[in-house]
Amino acid sequence: MGNQDLIERTNMGENSGTGFVAGLEDVVAAETRLSGVDGEAGELTISGFPVEELAGLASFEEVVYLLWNDELPGPGQLAEFRDDLVGRELPRDTLELLRSAAAEDVPVMDALRMATGTLRAGSDGEEALALVSGLSTIVAAYWRMLGGEEPVAPDPGLGHAANYLYMLTGERPGPESARALETYLNAVSDHGMNASTFVARVIVSTRSDFVSAVVGAIGALKGPLHGGAPGPALDVVFEIGEASRAEAYLREKLGRGERLMGFGHRIYHVRDPRADVLAAAAERLFTTDGDRELYDLALDVERTALRLLAEHRPGRNLQTNVEFYTALLLHGLGLPTELFSPTFAVGRVAGWTAHCFEQRSLDRLIRPQSEYLGEKDRSWVPPEER
Amino acid sequence: MGNQDLIERTNMGENSGTGFVAGLEDVVAAETRLSGVDGEAGELTISGFPVEELAGLASFEEVVYLLWNDELPGPGQLAEFRDDLVGRELPRDTLELLRSAAAEDVPVMDALRMATGTLRAGSDGEEALALVSGLSTIVAAYWRMLGGEEPVAPDPGLGHAANYLYMLTGERPGPESARALETYLNAVSDHGMNASTFVARVIVSTRSDFVSAVVGAIGALKGPLHGGAPGPALDVVFEIGEASRAEAYLREKLGRGERLMGFGHRIYHVRDPRADVLAAAAERLFTTDGDRELYDLALDVERTALRLLAEHRPGRNLQTNVEFYTALLLHGLGLPTELFSPTFAVGRVAGWTAHCFEQRSLDRLIRPQSEYLGEKDRSWVPPEER
Repeated sequence: MGNQDLIERTNMGENSGTGFVAGLEDVVAAETRLSGVDGEAGELTISGFPVEELAGLASFEEVVYLLWNDELPGPGQLAEFRDDLVGRELPRDTLELLRSAAAEDVPVMDALRMATGTLRAGSDGEEALALVSGLSTIVAAYWRMLGGEEPVAPDPGLGHAANYLYMLTGERPGPESARALETYLNAVSDHGMNASTFVARVIVSTRSDFVSAVVGAIGALKGPLHGGAPGPALDVVFEIGEASRAEAYLREKLGRGERLMGFGHRIYHVRDPRADVLAAAAERLFTTDGDRELYDLALDVERTALRLLAEHRPGRNLQTNVEFYTALLLHGLGLPTELFSPTFAVGRVAGWTAHCFEQRSLDRLIRPQSEYLGEKDRSWVPPEER
Repeated sequence: MGNQDLIERTNMGENSGTGFVAGLEDVVAAETRLSGVDGEAGELTISGFPVEELAGLASFEEVVYLLWNDELPGPGQLAEFRDDLVGRELPRDTLELLRSAAAEDVPVMDALRMATGTLRAGSDGEEALALVSGLSTIVAAYWRMLGGEEPVAPDPGLGHAANYLYMLTGERPGPESARALETYLNAVSDHGMNASTFVARVIVSTRSDFVSAVVGAIGALKGPLHGGAPGPALDVVFEIGEASRAEAYLREKLGRGERLMGFGHRIYHVRDPRADVLAAAAERLFTTDGDRELYDLALDVERTALRLLAEHRPGRNLQTNVEFYTALLLHGLGLPTELFSPTFAVGRVAGWTAHCFEQRSLDRLIRPQSEYLGEKDRSWVPPEER
């Protein structure tokens, strides 16, 4: 059976009768206490908290602690955990590797994967701390190198989110910016099963280490079907430029049958609960120290898009997805599009490491089957007789 | 629900009624034309060839070409493919990274994962070539650095297997050694679905790149439940030392209820077909330029072990597995135990890259579900009130 046949069988969802499930769709690969997604109800629960209850109030350190320990830290535990997690300077050879990657303009996600692979620790706990702490340090250091600047060492006096902005820009952010980023990191900290989290769990299931697991997860996240293409959601807003052009522009786009980035989600059939959380955070950010005009334009575009989508795609119930508000919020924080996926990783590493702990305690190899559809009993002939 | 409850449910194989399959056991996650394992019949088919037909006759280059193209190369295609695949010297920053890893005595599999992550190419085809070629170069260079020696550049005149031995030792191997290694690399080149191959496919399924996929696969392979602990199979032979002690030693071990490494396999319930292939290769190797005495001892130990296992574990039908003959063969080639898993990776990268091509052509995201068993509707209280 050649590739073309395989493709057709897979696309048709044809079932071979032996239990092949294309894409493992609807197969439950793990039971977890970390997070739960109810796509029909539009609910996301993170370690017992509705995302709306947690994301805007907790610090990122609290969310990481919560995911790892299934309870929020007391004041003493939180202070200790912040100390454990505070960014350390990167090892010399990690910095060297990033420098030569920057000289060749390696994309940020690739550089992040490479450099994360050089982190070495010892116990699972140490590796988890090094990973959560290290990802933000690596992204920030590499981004500065790409711009021809020296990395900024982390400031132990700042929280994790504020430190990330500080290491990126060299300036200590205002409280509204730090809070907005923290809300974003919390909102994306975990999201049930997804390709990157699943990769991390499969790797740990062989009794491998957490660094290997998170390196694998970053490799999966960089794929455009996962976290690798979050920029375009806001492009439409920039292209429209002013509210009066929104309807004509969007009508033309939909008339051509084009997909509208920023609307619709594979899992959520109602509004993604993270969209509301990020919308509120964006509003606060843009109202206090952002470009209020852009925010108003984005909201105008959103309203028009939802109205036109209901008209053009009746019955689909397409809603604003998390990408739209992610793009608006991160743009408001001054982050360029190239940092959107890496910043997603800086938040999601909380969930990846939590799933590593959970999988470790289960200690059960994840190893599905495949079905062989190729030829059989071919006979060998030496090269000169072929 | 706490971790302990999750562990108990998973270990009991308790089904939640929503389709949770612990370890994805028996779930068919892919249809493939690359290889098929029939554990009941003791058959392994690689791209249409029974492993016994292919492994001892083909060059490793031919097997890689076969897996990628579903046909053996003609003489001209083979010559061209050998040129494409021939080892290149490693980039300077990859070597630097390996040097500082060697200074800290980083285990070979970790160093291999780190260094593979620094490979950069372009198209899928270029990356696949760079990976198959690069893994052997990395392992050999790192092994020499660990021993305080300079890496040996690959010799473009040698085939892949011979080159690996040459880069490890600095000496061009005899034809029997090259053939024995080639047979091993072919025998382990692909083996249906397994944790590392599965990781590679999940990563590519997000439209990520082949380097990311193989880095993830190496991370999975290094786990002791996968390829990470192949040494002990021969330890028992060394401990026994001479044939006359075998029965008493093995009886005592089995009497204590200990597991006998080198016997039994999760999938094969009859003899692993790769064991026969490697046994024949080992016999040829040891007969021509090896330690014939060790070979005879190993065979004695095997016979005694099989007899005692039939007596002590009746009905289990425990057979010599691939680890036993792998250990014997690689030991005969002069490879130390630390190189067994890395050499496994040097062979299996043929299958990993082939699965990457296959998954790429399917272009279907692999994304299972999870079931949330944690609490719900927890309420936020600030730290000072906890």
